[in-house]
Amino acid sequence: MIRITDVTSPANPVLKSLKALSEKKARRAQGLFLAEGLRVCTEALAAGHVPTTLVFTAEAERHPLTIALIRATSAARGTCLRTTPDLMQRLTGKDNAAGVAAAYEIPGTDLDRIDRRTAKLWLVAENLKDPGNFGTMLRTCDATGAGGVILLDQSCDPFSVEAVRASMGALFSRRVAQATGREFFQWLRAGEGQLVGAALAGSTVDYRAHAYAGPCFLLMGNEQAGLPDDYASQCDALVKLPMHGSADSLNVAVCAGVLLYHALDRLGG
Amino acid sequence: MIRITDVTSPANPVLKSLKALSEKKARRAQGLFLAEGLRVCTEALAAGHVPTTLVFTAEAERHPLTIALIRATSAARGTCLRTTPDLMQRLTGKDNAAGVAAAYEIPGTDLDRIDRRTAKLWLVAENLKDPGNFGTMLRTCDATGAGGVILLDQSCDPFSVEAVRASMGALFSRRVAQATGREFFQWLRAGEGQLVGAALAGSTVDYRAHAYAGPCFLLMGNEQAGLPDDYASQCDALVKLPMHGSADSLNVAVCAGVLLYHALDRLGG
Repeated sequence: MIRITDVTSPANPVLKSLKALSEKKARRAQGLFLAEGLRVCTEALAAGHVPTTLVFTAEAERHPLTIALIRATSAARGTCLRTTPDLMQRLTGKDNAAGVAAAYEIPGTDLDRIDRRTAKLWLVAENLKDPGNFGTMLRTCDATGAGGVILLDQSCDPFSVEAVRASMGALFSRRVAQATGREFFQWLRAGEGQLVGAALAGSTVDYRAHAYAGPCFLLMGNEQAGLPDDYASQCDALVKLPMHGSADSLNVAVCAGVLLYHALDRLGG
Repeated sequence: MIRITDVTSPANPVLKSLKALSEKKARRAQGLFLAEGLRVCTEALAAGHVPTTLVFTAEAERHPLTIALIRATSAARGTCLRTTPDLMQRLTGKDNAAGVAAAYEIPGTDLDRIDRRTAKLWLVAENLKDPGNFGTMLRTCDATGAGGVILLDQSCDPFSVEAVRASMGALFSRRVAQATGREFFQWLRAGEGQLVGAALAGSTVDYRAHAYAGPCFLLMGNEQAGLPDDYASQCDALVKLPMHGSADSLNVAVCAGVLLYHALDRLGG
C-alpha cells in the first residue's frame, strides 16, 4: 500500500529537516543529502538508489516516472510527501524549482570502498574548493566511463546542494572517496596504478606525449594554487596542456575533461 | 599628478554607481562593467584596457602592480579611490574580497567587429544561460588561442560579475560578440569558415573523425536543450563526444574545452 502525506505548512518537521540538508552540519547529523529533479532522481533509481524521503508537487505526480519513484520509495518504507510549488521552491531555494526532490543516504567515502580495477581512469583532486567544479568533474567521469573522483585534504563537501546539482546524477553512478594526501599515496602504491599530475611547471610533458596506462589516476591541483611540489613529486608523470593565451590558466574541470577524453582515446575508449 | 580620493562612506556616489554594476540595467546605462582582483586588472592593463574607475584598499596599494594600475588610471584621467576592506567587500559582495576592483568600458559586441582571420578557432554558443559557463568558455578560448565567443539569441550577459569572474581576465584578451542566429549564419556564410556543431543526436560523427579546418566555428547548444534542429542543419558537420555513462550529458564548458583542445591539436597547435 502506498501512503502519501500532504504537506502544506512550512513548519512541517520532515520538510524542515530536509530543508536543513543545505547545511553540512545537518547532512552529517542525518547522514542524508538532497537531490532535485525528476531526471536525476530517476537515474538514481535506475542505479539502485531509493530515496529515504521523496517530495513532489501534485503536477509532478502526473508523470509516470514520478509514480515509479513513489512506488519504489514506498516499497522501501521511505516517506512520500506531496507538497505545494511554493514549499518546493522553499525547499530547493530555486526560483524555477523542480517538481521532485529527494533525500538519499550519504554513501561511505573511504578509499577502501574503491575497487580500482573497475575503471581505466580515475580523477584525484587536491584541495578542490568549488563544489560546482567537483560536480562537473564527476559528471565528466560519468561521460567518459571514469570510475569517480577521489577528493584529497581540505576539499569541498561532495554532497552539498551545489555539488549534487552540477554532478547531474553522476553521484549515483560514480564513486566518491575522501582521504588525506598521505592516505591516498599509501593506498595507491599498495596496488597497480599510474599517477599523472596536471601541472603548469616542473618537469612536465605535453599531455599528448605521455603514455597513459590504466588504471590511470589523473591528479588535479587546487583552483588557485595548482599542485603542491610534494604532491607533484609523487607523480609518475606530470603533464601540461598547451597554453596559447595571456592568462596561462584553465578551469580545473575543463582541464580534467580534456585530460579524461584524451586519455580515454589513448586507452582505446 | 596622481589624485587619489579616500572613500570611507558607503553612501559615496561613485562607489554606489560601481556597486550598481552588479545589475544589468546599470551596466547598460553606464556602459561599464566591473572586474575584480589585481591579477585580472593587471592582465587587462597589459592588453591595453585602462579602468575608468579604480578602487583599492590601503593594503593593496603597497603592491607595485597596484601602483602601476593607479598610474595608468590616473594618466588616462580615470578616477582612483582608496577605500576600506569593509567597503570593498560590499562592492564585490564577496567574503574574501580582492584588494582591487575596477570599472571598464563595455566593448562593442557587433559581429562586424570580429575579424575571423585572426584565429583558427572560435566558439559560438546558442542560448547559453549560465554566465559561469560563458566565462569558463572564454577562459578556455584564451588558453587555446581561440578568438573568442559569439553568443547567439537569448544568451546570458557576458559582462555580469559572474561571467567576468569565471573568465579570469579573458574578457580583455578575447573577442565577444552578440547576435541572433540569423545574423550569425548570414555573417558566417559571407566569408570563409567551417561550422561544426556539437550534438548528441542526428547525423553526428565522432569528434575525432572530423577534418577540422580553420577558421573553424564550434557551435554549442543550450545547457538543457542542446542544439535546435534548424541550427544543426546549418552546420557543415555535427560531432559527438563518446558517452560511456548513464547520464548521456556533459557540461557545455567541458564539452567546448575538449573540442577546442582536440581541434587545436588537429590544426597543428
